[in-house]
Amino acid sequence: MRIVLTTGDIHGIGPEIILKSFISLQASGHQFIAAGSLIALDFYRDWLDIPVRLAPIENRADIARLVPEIGVLPVLSIAEPDIILPGTVSKTAGDIAMRSLEAAAELCREGLCDALVTAPIHKEAVALAGYQNTGHTDFLADFCRVPSPIMLFVDPVSGLKVALATIHEQLSKVPSLIRTMDLDRFFLTLAESMQKDFRSTDPKIAVLGLNPHASDGGVMGDEEAAIISPCIERLSKSLRIEGPFPADGFFGAKRYLDYDLIVAMYHDQGLLPFKVLAFDTGINVTLGLPIVRTSPDHGTGFDKAGKGTASERSFYEAALLAGEIARNRTITT
Amino acid sequence: MRIVLTTGDIHGIGPEIILKSFISLQASGHQFIAAGSLIALDFYRDWLDIPVRLAPIENRADIARLVPEIGVLPVLSIAEPDIILPGTVSKTAGDIAMRSLEAAAELCREGLCDALVTAPIHKEAVALAGYQNTGHTDFLADFCRVPSPIMLFVDPVSGLKVALATIHEQLSKVPSLIRTMDLDRFFLTLAESMQKDFRSTDPKIAVLGLNPHASDGGVMGDEEAAIISPCIERLSKSLRIEGPFPADGFFGAKRYLDYDLIVAMYHDQGLLPFKVLAFDTGINVTLGLPIVRTSPDHGTGFDKAGKGTASERSFYEAALLAGEIARNRTITT
Repeated sequence: MRIVLTTGDIHGIGPEIILKSFISLQASGHQFIAAGSLIALDFYRDWLDIPVRLAPIENRADIARLVPEIGVLPVLSIAEPDIILPGTVSKTAGDIAMRSLEAAAELCREGLCDALVTAPIHKEAVALAGYQNTGHTDFLADFCRVPSPIMLFVDPVSGLKVALATIHEQLSKVPSLIRTMDLDRFFLTLAESMQKDFRSTDPKIAVLGLNPHASDGGVMGDEEAAIISPCIERLSKSLRIEGPFPADGFFGAKRYLDYDLIVAMYHDQGLLPFKVLAFDTGINVTLGLPIVRTSPDHGTGFDKAGKGTASERSFYEAALLAGEIARNRTITT
Repeated sequence: MRIVLTTGDIHGIGPEIILKSFISLQASGHQFIAAGSLIALDFYRDWLDIPVRLAPIENRADIARLVPEIGVLPVLSIAEPDIILPGTVSKTAGDIAMRSLEAAAELCREGLCDALVTAPIHKEAVALAGYQNTGHTDFLADFCRVPSPIMLFVDPVSGLKVALATIHEQLSKVPSLIRTMDLDRFFLTLAESMQKDFRSTDPKIAVLGLNPHASDGGVMGDEEAAIISPCIERLSKSLRIEGPFPADGFFGAKRYLDYDLIVAMYHDQGLLPFKVLAFDTGINVTLGLPIVRTSPDHGTGFDKAGKGTASERSFYEAALLAGEIARNRTITT
């Protein structure tokens, strides 16, 4: 599989973790190219003395004919800065990040690449550059014209997978979103992705309750009885799906070990246990897109930029998983 | 300190964990008595062959004159069942549980005991017995006429302490409760308790945001900017209090290690990370009451009742902590 890595915000740790990961990733059998700022990659490589050679891709059409060479990372330059200021929020860096993302997504759409792995971008920098969608997932949803892609978090070490029914929503809106969203379709998309992307043919899915103690039989809220349980009931005729479970007890008692996928109703409900259990190795996967896209489960790390101390572990795992998903999709179709 | 242990729901693991804990607890230097069903304690002791002798307390007034004897647990019989059915929800068991709780709380109020440790009760059984308040905390709040006691979770192994700003509330009500509650008073009560109960003279307190990413500067919700941040700002003149922090990143990056106390805005936000980090040893402490009360951080365990396999660890830790808090309160006053 050919995988494109976007440099993300060039004032963050993106270029560094791409270069460091690339050294180990070459043994994976996949082919990697970077898209974004060649100057930034070159800057961090020299500054941090990372033993990778950069080979500019002169022409997009050359990508299909690239022959992998050990220690050489092909780079498609999309946009370049005048100056690099590690740790700084800047309009230019935000602009380069988003233009690189768009170009890389385009490479995937055209079939020149099979998967996309994104280094972190900075919401504030992206907003300064005039973009409305300041996140990767929203941008890609628009780009692919998919109304509601799904955020899945994967820990490749433990195998833990947590999906979110609602993502970046203020807490006061979550209950009404759960009431009005098409939950059946959401779970069906998830189950389909488990099969297609992860080769999990009959996945066992656990659903968490929205309210504390999953409402304790209706004592605290009725979303479980009115919405979530009937949905599980309907789907359990065709899927292995169970719940709604009281979230704290479910994770506390390690019941997640019995399921292939855990579905949380909102951001913190899923990410609190996930990040405690899998902080260093967590990966974010966007499901429901025609494009395969993964990313590390951390931010731009402005405080570490240019210091050489950033861990490439999560990015490395994200790139491996992107290759695996892309390969799985070929097998299925 | 003299500590009273309530037998909780006698069809659950309460009597078993009291008996097992008692064996080790005697080395603590505190004195322990049980209040509830003598018959239940006797039943599980015989059935599970636990080497503890039970000494009925004939008269409440005798409690003040009790002399500890190794291997002998004094028991104040409050109410007794006709039959014991481990693992069964029953009105009688619910009734005995609540009458025992009231009697034990009364012993503390009168000064005959210094602290109360409660074995788990079953909400459904308590409701069958006709009680409106089906939880310990609510019952004790009424009993002590304290409008809003605070639930604190403590892991004695790691030292992790997590308090909840709202407790058993349906999620849709949480944002408005945070907006309308007296947050300043809540934090001041907490800080006072940290000093009085835990001898933490200048506790460092971390506050989690309500919304994902603590709203990311107002992008998702305004409770941080409108309510939580101004409150922290006001209190930081007299307390070491910081936040609001994005909850998932805070726990993922182990920032909780830098604070004496973490305050979550709602049930699952606090208990998800707490139970993942401290399931076996977690303790629940009710703060803001004139009575010292702790309990293990687990339920009645009906599936394990009468089998002898229940872990007494959390109850043991809860009893030790009750003794410590009671002693700390004497030092302060």
